[in-house]
Amino acid sequence: MRIYLDHNATSPTLPEVAAAMARVYAGPPANPASTHADGRHAAALVEAARGHVARLVGAADPASIVFTSGGTEADVLALRGTFEGLAGDERRRGLITSAAEHPAVLETAERLGALGWATVHTLDVGADGLPTGLDSALGPDTRLVSLMAANNETGVCLPLAQAAEAAHRVGALLHTDAVQALGKVPLSLSADGVDLASFSAHKIGGPQGVGALFVRPGRSLAAQLTGGGQEGGLRSGTLNVAGVVGFGEAARIAHEAWTARERAMRSTRDRIEAVVRAALPGARVHGADAERLPNTLSLTFPHLSAEALVMMLDADDVAASLGSACSAGSGKPSHVLVAMGVGADRLRGAIRISTGPGTTLDQAERAAERIVACVRKLDALAGR
Amino acid sequence: MRIYLDHNATSPTLPEVAAAMARVYAGPPANPASTHADGRHAAALVEAARGHVARLVGAADPASIVFTSGGTEADVLALRGTFEGLAGDERRRGLITSAAEHPAVLETAERLGALGWATVHTLDVGADGLPTGLDSALGPDTRLVSLMAANNETGVCLPLAQAAEAAHRVGALLHTDAVQALGKVPLSLSADGVDLASFSAHKIGGPQGVGALFVRPGRSLAAQLTGGGQEGGLRSGTLNVAGVVGFGEAARIAHEAWTARERAMRSTRDRIEAVVRAALPGARVHGADAERLPNTLSLTFPHLSAEALVMMLDADDVAASLGSACSAGSGKPSHVLVAMGVGADRLRGAIRISTGPGTTLDQAERAAERIVACVRKLDALAGR
Repeated sequence: MRIYLDHNATSPTLPEVAAAMARVYAGPPANPASTHADGRHAAALVEAARGHVARLVGAADPASIVFTSGGTEADVLALRGTFEGLAGDERRRGLITSAAEHPAVLETAERLGALGWATVHTLDVGADGLPTGLDSALGPDTRLVSLMAANNETGVCLPLAQAAEAAHRVGALLHTDAVQALGKVPLSLSADGVDLASFSAHKIGGPQGVGALFVRPGRSLAAQLTGGGQEGGLRSGTLNVAGVVGFGEAARIAHEAWTARERAMRSTRDRIEAVVRAALPGARVHGADAERLPNTLSLTFPHLSAEALVMMLDADDVAASLGSACSAGSGKPSHVLVAMGVGADRLRGAIRISTGPGTTLDQAERAAERIVACVRKLDALAGR
Repeated sequence: MRIYLDHNATSPTLPEVAAAMARVYAGPPANPASTHADGRHAAALVEAARGHVARLVGAADPASIVFTSGGTEADVLALRGTFEGLAGDERRRGLITSAAEHPAVLETAERLGALGWATVHTLDVGADGLPTGLDSALGPDTRLVSLMAANNETGVCLPLAQAAEAAHRVGALLHTDAVQALGKVPLSLSADGVDLASFSAHKIGGPQGVGALFVRPGRSLAAQLTGGGQEGGLRSGTLNVAGVVGFGEAARIAHEAWTARERAMRSTRDRIEAVVRAALPGARVHGADAERLPNTLSLTFPHLSAEALVMMLDADDVAASLGSACSAGSGKPSHVLVAMGVGADRLRGAIRISTGPGTTLDQAERAAERIVACVRKLDALAGR
C-alpha cells in the first residue's frame, strides 16, 4: 500500500466532500445568479458553505469570505486588488513581503513592481524561518504587508496578531497567505486584526479549483475578474456551486473534528521525525526552533540529493516532495531554505514530508524506516 | 416534473461527467505539479482532457488550450493579458468590442480604459444582432478585436473567419468569447485564424469552475494568475484535476454525440418557437434574421413584464431566464436588446429560453403551452 506524505501539495478528497459534491451534480442545474427556484436553491447551498468556511477561519461575518478558484487567485486578488491603479492614495506604494513567501505572492509582487504600482521590499528570513526586520521596513508609504501564516516547506508559523498590529501602526494592511495554516492551526482572523487572508480547499480534503479570500469588512479591493458582478462585485464568474459546497463540507469537518485531526497529523509527523533523527545523526530538521505546523517536516542530509531520495521513496511507494510541489521539476534549490541560510552542502538535500489527518502511526513508522534505508543506500552508493 | 429551459445559464451535469469526476475524487491525491507517481498520473489525466477540448474547438495543437476557472477568467486573461503594460508595442492601444458582449468582456474593457492601457471602441449592434462598423473602426492602432462567437441572449453567431481576417488585415488579433457557441455550433479555431477564444465547461454538461482559453501558438500574453508557473506559465495555481477531467469528458461527449445533441436542441427550440408564434401574434423573436444557435430563443411580447412572466413560469415549474442570468436581479433592461434597437414597449419583455440536448419534444410542447397560458393570463390581468 502506498503511503502518501505530501498533504501540503494536495490532500485526499474526504468521502463526505465527494458525496456532498455528487449530490449537487445529481441535482437540478444550479446557477446561483438565476432568479428561478433552481437558482435560489443553489444560492442557499453557497451561503451555508460560506458560513462553514467563516467559522473555520474565525471570521465574524460570513460575508467577508469571497470564493475564488484557489489560493493563487486569492493571493493575486489581494495583492493586485490592493495596488491596482493605486486607488485611494498614490503615495502609498510600499509592499512588504518576505523571501520565504509562496511564488503566488513573490511573482505577483514582482509584477506589481514591474508595472510601477508597488515598491517591493522583500524581508530576509532568519535561521528559524521567520521573516526579520519588519518593524524597520514599515513606513508611512507602506500600503500592504504580505506574509504567510505558515510556510509551505518548513511549516513555520507567523504570529498574525503581532504582524497585523505592526502593519496597522503605520496605516498599512496585513495580507496573509494562510493556505497551509488552514485546518492545521487555529485561526481567528477577525480577532487578530488580519485584513486579507488566502485559502485553498484542496489542502484540507476539499476539492481542487476552489479557494477563498477573507476580506475584512470595510476594506476595498479592485476586482480582478470583472464581469457579472458575483461575490459582491469582488469576483465575477458563475460560482462553482459543487466546489463551494465541497469546500464548506471540508471546513465543517476540519472544525468539528479538530482535536482528532490535529493529533493524527502531529503524532505521525513527530514519529517520523524521531525515528529519522535517531537513526541518522546527519539529519537536520528545518523550522523546528519556531512555532510549526503539526504536520510538516523539512529534512536535509549532508551532500545528499533530495531529488534522488524522493525518487527512490516514490519507487518504494512513499510519496514525499522535493521542496514545494509548485517549484518541483525546476531543479532550483528551495528559495525558502536559501533564505533560511542553510549551507550549500544541504541545499540539494531538502525533502518535505507532510502528514494528514488520515495518516496512521503504522504508516509513519514504515515510511520512516524506508527514509532511513534509502538515505543509507544513497550514502553507500556515493561512498559516504 | 420541472422543465429546465435555462441551459445558457448553466446546464445539468452529465452523468458520465459526474462519474469521471467521482473516480478522480476516490483516487489517490493528485497534484499534477508533483513529480511522484501520483502527480504523474494526475498530469496524464489532464493531458487527455486537454486533447478532448482541443478536438471539440478545432485546435490543431492541444497545447494551445490553457485551463482556467471558467469563461470569465478566460475573457479577463485574453483582454488584460493582451494589454497589460502594453507589452510589445505602446502605440497599439486600440480595443474594439461590441455593445452586445458579455459583461466579462465589457467590464474588463472598461477597466483597461480606466487604467489607460486601452482605447476602447464599442461597436453598435444591428437589428439582426450582429456588430456593425468593424471595418471602419479597425486601424493601425488596433491591438485586439473581441467579439463573441454567439450571443448569450439571442444566440446570434458571428462569422469568425471573416472577423479574424479583418483583424489580421491591420495587424490586430481576434479574441472571441465562445462560451455559448461551444458544443452548439461547430468551431474550427485553427482553420478560422482565431487568436484567442474563451470557453466554459458548465455550459456543455461539464462542471462549474472550469473553463479554458485557446491561445494560438506564437501569441504571447501576460499571465494574470502569477505563481507556480502552471499551464506553460500562463495560468498559475494547482490544476483542478477532477474539474478538468469533467470538462474533458463533457467535450468528448459533445464531439462524439454531436448530431443527436444538435438535433435535440434545435427541434425543441423550434417547437417552442412555433407554438408560441402561432398562438400569440404579438410575440417577437430576436436574432432570428441571422445565423443563430440551435438552442436559444429570445422572445418579447408588447408591454409585458418579462420578470412577471419568468416568475409565473417558475411557479409553474418551467425554468427560463430574464435576459442573461449574469445580470438577472439587477432590474436593468437587457443591454443586448437595447443595442439591437428594440423599442421601449418591449424592453421589459425579453425572456430567454434555452434548450439542452436532454430536452424532450414533450417537455418543449408542455413548456410552450404554459408560456402561452401565462402570457394570456398576464395580458388579461393588465386588461390588454
